[in-house]
Amino acid sequence: MASHGALANEDPLKLGELTLGDYLQDLDYRNVLVGKSEARGNQDALQRLQIEQHTNIGKRLAQGGFENFEHFSGIYPDQIAPEDLAYNDYLYANGFDGKNPWESWANSAVNQDGKKVSGWQMRNSNLPAAVPEEHSETVYTTDRALEFLSSVDKDERWCLHLSYIKPHWPYLAPAPYHSIYTKDHILPAVRHSTELSNPHPVSGAFMQETYSRNFSRDEVRERVIPVYMGLIKQVDDHLGRVFEKLKSMGLIDSTLIVFTSDHGDYLGDHWLGEKDLFHEQSVRIPLIVYDPDKEAEQSRGIKVVDGDTIVLNGEKIRFSGIDTPEHLREYTISQIDYSDRGPRVSLNLHPYDCRAHMIRNKEWKYILHEKFRPQLYDLRNDPDEFHDLGDSPEHKSVRQEMDEKFFSWFRNRLIRTEMEHDFLFEMGVERDEKMGILIGHW
Amino acid sequence: MASHGALANEDPLKLGELTLGDYLQDLDYRNVLVGKSEARGNQDALQRLQIEQHTNIGKRLAQGGFENFEHFSGIYPDQIAPEDLAYNDYLYANGFDGKNPWESWANSAVNQDGKKVSGWQMRNSNLPAAVPEEHSETVYTTDRALEFLSSVDKDERWCLHLSYIKPHWPYLAPAPYHSIYTKDHILPAVRHSTELSNPHPVSGAFMQETYSRNFSRDEVRERVIPVYMGLIKQVDDHLGRVFEKLKSMGLIDSTLIVFTSDHGDYLGDHWLGEKDLFHEQSVRIPLIVYDPDKEAEQSRGIKVVDGDTIVLNGEKIRFSGIDTPEHLREYTISQIDYSDRGPRVSLNLHPYDCRAHMIRNKEWKYILHEKFRPQLYDLRNDPDEFHDLGDSPEHKSVRQEMDEKFFSWFRNRLIRTEMEHDFLFEMGVERDEKMGILIGHW
Repeated sequence: MASHGALANEDPLKLGELTLGDYLQDLDYRNVLVGKSEARGNQDALQRLQIEQHTNIGKRLAQGGFENFEHFSGIYPDQIAPEDLAYNDYLYANGFDGKNPWESWANSAVNQDGKKVSGWQMRNSNLPAAVPEEHSETVYTTDRALEFLSSVDKDERWCLHLSYIKPHWPYLAPAPYHSIYTKDHILPAVRHSTELSNPHPVSGAFMQETYSRNFSRDEVRERVIPVYMGLIKQVDDHLGRVFEKLKSMGLIDSTLIVFTSDHGDYLGDHWLGEKDLFHEQSVRIPLIVYDPDKEAEQSRGIKVVDGDTIVLNGEKIRFSGIDTPEHLREYTISQIDYSDRGPRVSLNLHPYDCRAHMIRNKEWKYILHEKFRPQLYDLRNDPDEFHDLGDSPEHKSVRQEMDEKFFSWFRNRLIRTEMEHDFLFEMGVERDEKMGILIGHW
Repeated sequence: MASHGALANEDPLKLGELTLGDYLQDLDYRNVLVGKSEARGNQDALQRLQIEQHTNIGKRLAQGGFENFEHFSGIYPDQIAPEDLAYNDYLYANGFDGKNPWESWANSAVNQDGKKVSGWQMRNSNLPAAVPEEHSETVYTTDRALEFLSSVDKDERWCLHLSYIKPHWPYLAPAPYHSIYTKDHILPAVRHSTELSNPHPVSGAFMQETYSRNFSRDEVRERVIPVYMGLIKQVDDHLGRVFEKLKSMGLIDSTLIVFTSDHGDYLGDHWLGEKDLFHEQSVRIPLIVYDPDKEAEQSRGIKVVDGDTIVLNGEKIRFSGIDTPEHLREYTISQIDYSDRGPRVSLNLHPYDCRAHMIRNKEWKYILHEKFRPQLYDLRNDPDEFHDLGDSPEHKSVRQEMDEKFFSWFRNRLIRTEMEHDFLFEMGVERDEKMGILIGHW
C-alpha cells in the first residue's frame, strides 16, 4: 500500500507501478481476466499523458496489465449498474427480465409468500437465490473461463486470472448450495467476553457498526455462515470443471495453479463483521500452489496451517519450484486506512488519522494506531487474540522491540520502485572519475 | 525522496509525480528552463506507454514539466560531452576552438608557463578561466534568460527556472572574479579536533575521501574558497541584469522571485568536502522570496537566519503572500543514499545499507544509520555540531523522543501521492448505502 498507493477500491495504482500482468506481458504471456477486478487507471494521469482509454496502452493501464475477457468490478445494485454489463446481457438472453437482473435474480430470493426479497437483507440468506444455479455468478464466470481456455493456441503462453466474486455480499446462494450446510456445520464463534469489556477504541468502534452488531448475534451467524460455506463449496465444484478442462486439453501438467483470496471475513468472530481490522480472520488468507514442474517435487505436499510460516500477500512465487521456507519472511506487515468507514465518524477522526499498521511475527502481533494506544497479542499463548496486551506494563519491552522492527522496515522500504534494481550493483563508485569528473582533486 | 523516488542524479522522477511545472501548466503558465537540470524521463516507462520522446508529452516528462529554452544537465568533461551542446556551439561561434570548448576554455586555465591546465585540479583554482568573463557559463546562461524574457508576450503567464551551474566543480572563475576575494576574506573552517578522534564510522569514511582530505588542508581552502565566493559574486552581479530587465519591461511589480539552491557545500568544514552528509553546511540552503503582491506586505522584510524557522525544501510557496511562520514545520527530515559514493566500498556495505535519515528540530539533530549507531547533536548548546551525542548515555531519552517523531513521520507519510486529496473529505461513510450497497443489514 505504501508503495503502490492504492488504499481503497476507488484508488488507481500509481502510474509507474508494474503489475503481474505487466511482468508477464514482457515474457509474451497473454494475460486474461475473467471475473472481478477493481483495477482502474489513473484518469487524471492518462489525460495528462494524452493516453486514450480505448488504446491498447490505455486499456493495459486501466486493467492492471490484463485483457478483460470478462470483467466486472463488484456487485451492482440498481443505483450503480452500468448499461453494458455482460452478465446482465447474459441473463436477458436466458429469459431473466428487469432493469438489472443481476440484482433482481442473482441477488434476490423469493420468500414463502412468493414475493421477491433482497439478498442485502441477511434475514433472507436462508432462501435460495431467484436465479437457478446454472445461471448464477459462479457458473457464468466459470463458463467464461472455459470459453477463454477453448480459445488458446496450443503453443500460446497465457495467464488466466479467474476471479470469482462470491462469496461476497449479498450473502445469497442458488439452490442447492443455499441448504447444503446448516447451523450444525458451522464452527463456534471465536470471541470472548473479555473483548467486550473496555475494548481498544478502534475495535470498539468497529464493533458498533451494523455488520458487527448483526454478526454478533447467533441468529445471524446461524443463517448466514452456512450459506457462505455453500458459496465456497460452489466455487470448489466449479473449479473442478476448470481442472477437467485443463486435463482434457492436455495442459494440466504444464499449468501452474495458484489459489488465493484477497482477504478473510470476521463473520462474527471477535464480535465483528466484514474485514476491516487485523485479526487473523481478516488478514490471513488461503494460498494453494499446484506446480507440475519437476523442480517443485521436493516441496510437493507441504502444508502450512499453523501460521508459523509467513508468506506476504504479493510476494513473488517463482515459476519453477516454490521458495523454500528459509526464504520466507521473519514478519509480515499490514496497513489499513478506514477513513471511508463508519469509525472515522464515530471516533471523530480526521481522515489522515484513520491509518493503522500491523506487524506480526511467529510470537507477536503488534498494531499501531495514530490517535490511540497500540495493541499487542501474544500469539503463542493467546492464538485466538482475545487478550490485548497493548497497555500491559510487563510487555513494554516487547512493544519496543516490535516498534524497532517496524521503524526499520519503514526506513528500508524500497524507494526506487519504478527502476530496475540491478543497476545499483553495477554502479561503481569510480564511475565519475572514468567520465572525467574529478571531484576534489588537488 | 521516499515519495518521488529519485535518489541520485541518474534517477527519473516516478512517472506519476507532478512537478512545479505540471502544476503551473494547469494554470496556463509557460514554464521555461534556462540552465542546469537533471530532470529526466523514465525511459522504460515511456517505452512501455509508447510515448515518443519527441512528442510534447514525452518532452514534458523528460524535462520535469518545463520547456527547455536552454538546457544542460551538468558539467561535461570530454568523455561525456554530447555532440549538440548549445554552449559549445556558442563558444565555437565566438572563436573558441577544440572538441569541447566548454572544458578546454571555461573549465581550463592558462598557467604562468602559458600552458593550458585543468580546472579539475584545485591547485589551479587561483588562475582565471581561459574563457573571458563575457563568454563564461554564468553570463551565457543570463543572456539566454534575457532572450527568453524578451520573447514573452505582455499578457502571457510564465515561469522561468533560471538555474546557474556555477559555483560547481571545477572551481574556476573568469577574471576578474577569480581574484576579487583572497584568503583574508574567507571564514575560518568550522571544525574541531574532537571530530577527528573516534568519529562516527560514516563521517570517518567520508573524511577519508579525496575531496575531504584536500579540503581539510588550509592550502586548498585558501585557494578554492575565494574563487567559490567570486563565482557567487558573479551570479549576484548577473542576477542584477535580470532584475533590470524585469524593471525595463514593467514586470518587476508582477513577478514573484524565489532564489534558492539545491544543497550547500562543506568546503572543509567538519573535515569534509562536497555535500554528502547532514551537517548544516550541507542541508541548509538559502531561500529569498521577493513577492510584490500587496498581500505579502505584512511579511515583507522578515529575515530568518537562526535556523529556528524551518522551511522544507519543496514546500509550497503560496502565490500571494507567504505562509506565516505558524504554518512552518516543527521539524524537517532529510534522507541520503550514498551507495554510489566511496564509503560504500570503504565501509564494505551492501548498497541497500547506505541509506541514512536525519530529523532536525530547533533543539536537536538526530541521524539514523542502518548499520551503525545513530548521531545526535545539541543545536542549542553545540550549534556547530562538533559533539556527537549519539552514544551518550545521558541523552538516551532525547534519542527515543526523536525516534518517535521520526517513526510517526514515516507512518503518516502521504501515500496517495498521485491523487487529488480533497476527495478524502468529500467521501462520506454513508456513500455505500446511497449506492444500494447495504453491508451487514439484517
